[in-house]
Amino acid sequence: MSGKFITLEGGEGAGKSTQALRLAERLRGQGITVVTTREPGGSEGAEAVRALFVDGAPDRWSVAAEACLINAARADHVERLIRPALERGDWVICDRFVDSTLAYQGAGKGLADSALRSLHHIAAADLWPDLTVLLDLPFAEGLERARSRGGAGRFEAHDTGFHGRVRAGFLQIAADEPARCRIVDSTGDADAVEAAVWAAVELLCQSHAPHDDGYRAPPETPAGRGMHVDTGDD
Amino acid sequence: MSGKFITLEGGEGAGKSTQALRLAERLRGQGITVVTTREPGGSEGAEAVRALFVDGAPDRWSVAAEACLINAARADHVERLIRPALERGDWVICDRFVDSTLAYQGAGKGLADSALRSLHHIAAADLWPDLTVLLDLPFAEGLERARSRGGAGRFEAHDTGFHGRVRAGFLQIAADEPARCRIVDSTGDADAVEAAVWAAVELLCQSHAPHDDGYRAPPETPAGRGMHVDTGDD
Repeated sequence: MSGKFITLEGGEGAGKSTQALRLAERLRGQGITVVTTREPGGSEGAEAVRALFVDGAPDRWSVAAEACLINAARADHVERLIRPALERGDWVICDRFVDSTLAYQGAGKGLADSALRSLHHIAAADLWPDLTVLLDLPFAEGLERARSRGGAGRFEAHDTGFHGRVRAGFLQIAADEPARCRIVDSTGDADAVEAAVWAAVELLCQSHAPHDDGYRAPPETPAGRGMHVDTGDD
Repeated sequence: MSGKFITLEGGEGAGKSTQALRLAERLRGQGITVVTTREPGGSEGAEAVRALFVDGAPDRWSVAAEACLINAARADHVERLIRPALERGDWVICDRFVDSTLAYQGAGKGLADSALRSLHHIAAADLWPDLTVLLDLPFAEGLERARSRGGAGRFEAHDTGFHGRVRAGFLQIAADEPARCRIVDSTGDADAVEAAVWAAVELLCQSHAPHDDGYRAPPETPAGRGMHVDTGDD
């Protein structure tokens, strides 16, 4: 694989889909071929599973069933869209991936982290992103944003205790895996968040460049650098 | 749990659904409350997953996706139908269960047995049947029976090498787990197979009776006993 695999993570209303599109445009401006996708879904089979997963009552599925469903969708998505794209040398930007499963079904609903990692090994042959950007904001703010755009899904209808555990779960993952994860404060406006995401991608390119002959560096930006990339808006 | 959990296994056209109904009637004749069910499916959520699983082209799903899908359905089925029934003291007769996954996705399609057992641990908290009756017959005969009743499903459309590996996989499971599994030759007529299945259930009752105060033994039948319960028709 020569392409880079970037995931955007975070709770409801964190701005992941907006930032995925903006990041893709920036990368395309550098001449990079980019595939944007999302989970659950992203391939024909995975989108069929998505409909089961995101619709219905909050307790439609047990956490074990949810974990298996989301991994079924991910297996299809990885095999039929993500890996082929990376093998062609494309970059893949995915709105949610394995960290959402660790945060929602693990931290949020209590399924053992070891079980979720076993599932990821089976379903996705342990494909992990080169870079994960965690768009972090207070869950109440995110839920308000998500609800204001209408069509609250099954997860938005979960209680606030759940959403608090999910946010804490994401932050713990980022703390445990600093080489892969960057936290971006997404309470700021979309331009500021975009700049912070871009700074995280620059760091990825720097860390990978010596080993990657096909690498073309994005240009410098004024955004600050560091493990915690902050928009300065909070 | 005080009820007994009996599964019927085997390839396409082995007579599982017919024998499940006959066994249920016999047990009801003994005053036992029996729940008959099937996989994939058996609960509302699992039936929704079933539609994804059994329809479409043979290569619709990768084996990893199949294994996750079937375990999602099983998680729902076990939690919402099978365990509650067993906890009430009912007997549950299920047409296919975990051994079908070990045989089809494992022996048939090459997914590691250890991965499939991890999935079963996560999805079904390691619920194993008290008795599994393997209805065995040459796969070509079973496929012919299945096709003659119409509506060939996704698995019937797999190649003959696959069906041969599935049959061998089932026989290997039965050989490895003689305390749980009984092989019944299902090339005979349905009455003969029914008698052989009943003999296997009698053995189950004998082996459990000393520890089960609520036990009521089915009556003796003329069918032979032994680990390999044979209808004498092959």
